[in-house]
Amino acid sequence: MIGRTRWDIAEGYIPETSTGPDSEMTSHETVCLLNPTDQDAHVEVTVYFGDRDPVGPYELRVPAERTCHVKFNGLDDPEPIPRGTDFASVLESDQPIVCQHTRLDSRQAENALLSTVPYAGGQ
Amino acid sequence: MIGRTRWDIAEGYIPETSTGPDSEMTSHETVCLLNPTDQDAHVEVTVYFGDRDPVGPYELRVPAERTCHVKFNGLDDPEPIPRGTDFASVLESDQPIVCQHTRLDSRQAENALLSTVPYAGGQ
Amino acid sequence: MIGRTRWDIAEGYIPETSTGPDSEMTSHETVCLLNPTDQDAHVEVTVYFGDRDPVGPYELRVPAERTCHVKFNGLDDPEPIPRGTDFASVLESDQPIVCQHTRLDSRQAENALLSTVPYAGGQ
Amino acid sequence: MIGRTRWDIAEGYIPETSTGPDSEMTSHETVCLLNPTDQDAHVEVTVYFGDRDPVGPYELRVPAERTCHVKFNGLDDPEPIPRGTDFASVLESDQPIVCQHTRLDSRQAENALLSTVPYAGGQ
Repeated sequence: MIGRTRWDIAEGYIPETSTGPDSEMTSHETVCLLNPTDQDAHVEVTVYFGDRDPVGPYELRVPAERTCHVKFNGLDDPEPIPRGTDFASVLESDQPIVCQHTRLDSRQAENALLSTVPYAGGQ
Repeated sequence: MIGRTRWDIAEGYIPETSTGPDSEMTSHETVCLLNPTDQDAHVEVTVYFGDRDPVGPYELRVPAERTCHVKFNGLDDPEPIPRGTDFASVLESDQPIVCQHTRLDSRQAENALLSTVPYAGGQ
Repeated sequence: MIGRTRWDIAEGYIPETSTGPDSEMTSHETVCLLNPTDQDAHVEVTVYFGDRDPVGPYELRVPAERTCHVKFNGLDDPEPIPRGTDFASVLESDQPIVCQHTRLDSRQAENALLSTVPYAGGQ
Repeated sequence: MIGRTRWDIAEGYIPETSTGPDSEMTSHETVCLLNPTDQDAHVEVTVYFGDRDPVGPYELRVPAERTCHVKFNGLDDPEPIPRGTDFASVLESDQPIVCQHTRLDSRQAENALLSTVPYAGGQ
């Protein structure tokens, strides 16, 4: 099977501050999407919080045979993702895709990185 | 399947010291829990050590459609997690949930991050 | 099952700059391949981008009972991997292998590391 | 299923140098083993290289209901793991266990961390 239609990312946090020479070093929370199929994938992201109802869907499109590295920092429809707040997210796609979750944290002088493949649900 | 009822985290370590401007930068070991179901999840955490019997259960609740980012630093019932000691943990939930394990290590001047999705057992 | 014939790495990025005392500290994007079988594995890597058609295959060989840590920085046939550009990759092998994806990012003074096991597709 | 009997770690590298105040900060490559069963687990580690035959088995024991965080730095029977050399490893256990792979890299002034759950083969 070449991908999955559902991915659950339990970890999410956009630091409020950054240190670094340019925008490349801004703290960010990213989900990398790969659509290896020959059909465009339409992805709906639902964002979960600790103390209120989920928000979404945020709609993404990953064209056939393309990758799309999406910063949660940039999602703003239906509303921006709050900074300095724990969240989680679920991605549901109409095509099988592959996801990887990465954070660059530049709150202190040197950047730190984390990355993992989220939990793959769905088909 | 939208989650799993058992998660095993083989890595666990809370550094004894921290460096940083505020509590946000305290070294911590975190497990992020996402409950995407419409039923509250009751989670029991058992903590394993190298040289003594397991301790637990620590009881957590993740409300329906909520995420909960739990610091092992803060668990204290039945007893605090010792600092500077290797441990592991098993989470068992009465609802399918998704977990992610993250550590912020600020023992040196700049923080380091690790994150991974633990081993998913259970249903 | 001792490995898989397809691995999908949704995250890929080779920083354009590095800091450090020697070539060991050059920013790099690596895929570690382990072939635990008694047959040589022939691996084809296809690289996906955000805005153009995939490039490949890049051909790798992992001898029987050997590991091979491949830097994307060094791949140049059919063409080098561009720096400072988001990409993703799919590895297809004629033998079951195991992959792990690691990045050393030394754009700032101290290095940062990420590593994860990519999504395992195929058999 | 509460664990697996085979784990493959494609990434392995013990840096030759370290920076830091004490032995806690020595660069190390660790595999964390959790044996949640009520039977002692006997684990055999085979180490793979790029240019020579595999070495092993290194024998480990993880008592019932215990965790064991093993540094590759400390393995020396049948022979030490070479520093500054790419390797990979396969763990085979007579009981189902759970593994997590972590590296602390302190070659530069600040430490970097990576961690991931290796590929789970076996039963």
